[in-house]
Amino acid sequence: MQNIESYRNYLLEQIQEYTWVKEPKNLYDPIDYILKLGGKRLRPILALMTCDIFGGNPKNAVNAALCVEVFHNFTLIHDDIMDDAPLRRGKKTVHEKWDLNTGILSGDAMLIMAYQLLEVYQGNQFQDLVSLFSKTAIEVCEGQQYDIDFESRNDVTVPEYLKMIEYKTAVLVGAAMQMGAIVAGANKEDQNAIFDFGRYLGIAFQLQDDYLDAFGDPATFGKQVGGDIIENKKTYLYLKAIEFADEKDKKSILDWFESHPADTVEKIEAVKQLFAVTGAKKATQDAVEAYTNKAFTILNQLQLPEDEKAQLKHFGMGLMTRNV
Amino acid sequence: MQNIESYRNYLLEQIQEYTWVKEPKNLYDPIDYILKLGGKRLRPILALMTCDIFGGNPKNAVNAALCVEVFHNFTLIHDDIMDDAPLRRGKKTVHEKWDLNTGILSGDAMLIMAYQLLEVYQGNQFQDLVSLFSKTAIEVCEGQQYDIDFESRNDVTVPEYLKMIEYKTAVLVGAAMQMGAIVAGANKEDQNAIFDFGRYLGIAFQLQDDYLDAFGDPATFGKQVGGDIIENKKTYLYLKAIEFADEKDKKSILDWFESHPADTVEKIEAVKQLFAVTGAKKATQDAVEAYTNKAFTILNQLQLPEDEKAQLKHFGMGLMTRNV
Repeated sequence: MQNIESYRNYLLEQIQEYTWVKEPKNLYDPIDYILKLGGKRLRPILALMTCDIFGGNPKNAVNAALCVEVFHNFTLIHDDIMDDAPLRRGKKTVHEKWDLNTGILSGDAMLIMAYQLLEVYQGNQFQDLVSLFSKTAIEVCEGQQYDIDFESRNDVTVPEYLKMIEYKTAVLVGAAMQMGAIVAGANKEDQNAIFDFGRYLGIAFQLQDDYLDAFGDPATFGKQVGGDIIENKKTYLYLKAIEFADEKDKKSILDWFESHPADTVEKIEAVKQLFAVTGAKKATQDAVEAYTNKAFTILNQLQLPEDEKAQLKHFGMGLMTRNV
Repeated sequence: MQNIESYRNYLLEQIQEYTWVKEPKNLYDPIDYILKLGGKRLRPILALMTCDIFGGNPKNAVNAALCVEVFHNFTLIHDDIMDDAPLRRGKKTVHEKWDLNTGILSGDAMLIMAYQLLEVYQGNQFQDLVSLFSKTAIEVCEGQQYDIDFESRNDVTVPEYLKMIEYKTAVLVGAAMQMGAIVAGANKEDQNAIFDFGRYLGIAFQLQDDYLDAFGDPATFGKQVGGDIIENKKTYLYLKAIEFADEKDKKSILDWFESHPADTVEKIEAVKQLFAVTGAKKATQDAVEAYTNKAFTILNQLQLPEDEKAQLKHFGMGLMTRNV
């Protein structure tokens, strides 16, 4: 296949063709709904691409890719309940379109279906995939719990925040790639390396998300710019601003992050200004670059053809220079 | 081990000794809480016993048994949210003691932990256990969905109801036993037979539950006698009463099942009377006996020592003649 669009098209075809709905419809309709709602499909594309790069047939990785995508969408349904979010990708969330109980139960079924998708694999491959998937899935739950815990804490450190986004977001990116490598029959060392590549890329991706939420271009950024600031979310930008600020700026930041003004424009502008003058904006850009470079360093050490490495690097660069 | 109390004690020891709590505590504390809340432990005991009966070391089945118990308790947490239940085994439910989000997320983590408990098994045994567990788990979700769907339907048939309780309750009993058989290395035919034994026993168990909810002895029955009647639940008793009743009695039943009187004593007595005169009470007792006999017929066909069969039969009879 060898290019991202061909992986994406193949994957979208598989999602369209797979029979997600059976009886009882009230359980499976929401699953079909969320899986066809769109999204970047980053994780499953990375699973296919990684299988290809390690010399496997990417078509053999489609069930591993779907496992990761179904799991990811399960977390979206349950997270949207926990966040009381009305919209997902511009459409109603599952618990809004149906109800709370449907959101819980259809989500549960998706978690089980994710495991079932791995049943096409055999022997050690099956065991390795299931164990990696479980380890990753439980870390995603732990990351979500840390995220919830942090909301009511005022003493969250940068290392704690980095661990939270690593668990909540990055390990699944790493696992998607490792699953592709397992299907291709890559050795353990290469598997671990590509996991770390994905994990570092995932951390960079989330830090970039924090950055774009404040400093993204409203014309191209998918979400409302300033959303994290309105909700007083303690992102990397906030933690670094608090770390770097003098007493006066620190007081301003803390005051803004206890406020809920009806007119949010002034707050967003003031906080962005504080993020800039304290050096938090620059520190966040630097962190994105640092984690991207960590990922690329690992890539350079891998025994892979240069053009395969270039493809992964291209994909990574695309994520990091994105404005959406 | 060879007797139920020794299996139970061994299992309770394992549950006590296992480290359920780690960081983040807010995720794992509720898991420790519900697992130590008590309960009959029927399913994991059956897993150990079945392994023993098929010539395996029951200690080898402890992780399969814990998998089933952790899964069962996951379903209790999520079901209690869906039912808005304040109490479970006389103590606060997880979402009451903590909150909704904790109930959802800790439940999710338990479902994953159930899979992780199977990682001590290898090769075909691992694959067989995981596949059986996933198939069962998704059927339990489907059963729960049917149960929810039936609340808003007035045309539920007896076969539909039986399928619902088979999925929601019985398949996990069958699966617990089959998992014990898999660990013991039993052949496929014996595995399927013992699954069916457990499945029929599970259906009988649930029908007995329907019966005891109305006709159990308040002094010994664990739950409030008449609870299903107060909540207008369409149990086997209700469906059979509607099927058998003349026009006058049918109207009485339908009227009672649309009422929510403050004083429930009169309603419970009237409905119990209707269940008796229509023949629904007798039909439910007969159905419990019929499914128990189906289970025992399968047992008789199994190539097992007579004393092993006697033990399973004893356990089955104990469930059916219980008043708790």
